[in-house]
Amino acid sequence: MKSLEEKILKEGRLRDGNILKVDSFLNHQMDIKFLNEIGKEFKRIFKDEKIDKILTIEASGIGIAAIVSQYFDFAPVVFAKKTESLNLDKDLYEAKVFSYTKKKEYVVRVGKRFLNKGERVLIIDDFLAMGCAAKGLLELVDKSEAELVGVGIVIEKGFQDGRKILEDMGVRVESLAILDDFKDGEIRFK
Amino acid sequence: MKSLEEKILKEGRLRDGNILKVDSFLNHQMDIKFLNEIGKEFKRIFKDEKIDKILTIEASGIGIAAIVSQYFDFAPVVFAKKTESLNLDKDLYEAKVFSYTKKKEYVVRVGKRFLNKGERVLIIDDFLAMGCAAKGLLELVDKSEAELVGVGIVIEKGFQDGRKILEDMGVRVESLAILDDFKDGEIRFK
Repeated sequence: MKSLEEKILKEGRLRDGNILKVDSFLNHQMDIKFLNEIGKEFKRIFKDEKIDKILTIEASGIGIAAIVSQYFDFAPVVFAKKTESLNLDKDLYEAKVFSYTKKKEYVVRVGKRFLNKGERVLIIDDFLAMGCAAKGLLELVDKSEAELVGVGIVIEKGFQDGRKILEDMGVRVESLAILDDFKDGEIRFK
Repeated sequence: MKSLEEKILKEGRLRDGNILKVDSFLNHQMDIKFLNEIGKEFKRIFKDEKIDKILTIEASGIGIAAIVSQYFDFAPVVFAKKTESLNLDKDLYEAKVFSYTKKKEYVVRVGKRFLNKGERVLIIDDFLAMGCAAKGLLELVDKSEAELVGVGIVIEKGFQDGRKILEDMGVRVESLAILDDFKDGEIRFK
């Protein structure tokens, strides 16, 4: 997606540890007009698919998924939770996820009421790197016997194994921008 | 907001500890079409105000704020973060917040780049109870020398002190539904 690549080049900033910061428009501050462009692009890519539900993970997937939903007939958005809360249902699907950014394992949870057998689910997230979060979400979809349509990612780190891991599981992976490695401290796309 | 009250009566569920669960449409699963109605209502209420930025807090405020932004000329949405991350800027405004639901204190953070002196900020959140999260967000706005326009809340617990605490600080508080206490296990509005 050309306009996304341009936006990354203009606003993205590289940090140590193969980290690309896009917090001016994607995951701390959010450019809602631009997220609408992202929504249109996902719709173009998945236009032949019936989507009953959009699944994402807190926190940075939520705003993206909310806007994307508007291009899929307002499919309900469910976000998996990472933290325990008194407010959460006891009746949950759970999966373990390892976060490389935070260097620890955590549990993602979705209330069983919100993922149902046979529902066609599109997973949306901001980044794909090692595929850990996506694998956790896949596991939730599996446990619910819902049907996974695919995984839609805004920015993929094309030099990490996430895509291969997911595709080896038979999952359709669609990314709007695929980063090449950050040699010489420069941002390049595949 | 009549349609919100109806939705709460239809889908809300009461739990021990004065907790109203609205996770089927507001803060676990999100009804995006309905969030657009919420956005329109906030616009009606704040129609005379220029809004440069919408500030919310992860996780459950994010989806609401993203949709609400569309009714305020796509004002950028910034969400305060509750967790530390390698990805976060070092240059932050911080404030402490006590969570009654989670029975602990935590720190909320916003990158200094994303709140600027003189910007007119609308705070949006899903619930107002004791006003702890809102007070933390106010403190971030204060520290940045941005200008607070008001606090827009979807559901206010009218039997708790949040509104009084905020109004005593001179803050405009606008809630779309105000709950009366849950005597007899029934949901009533003020």
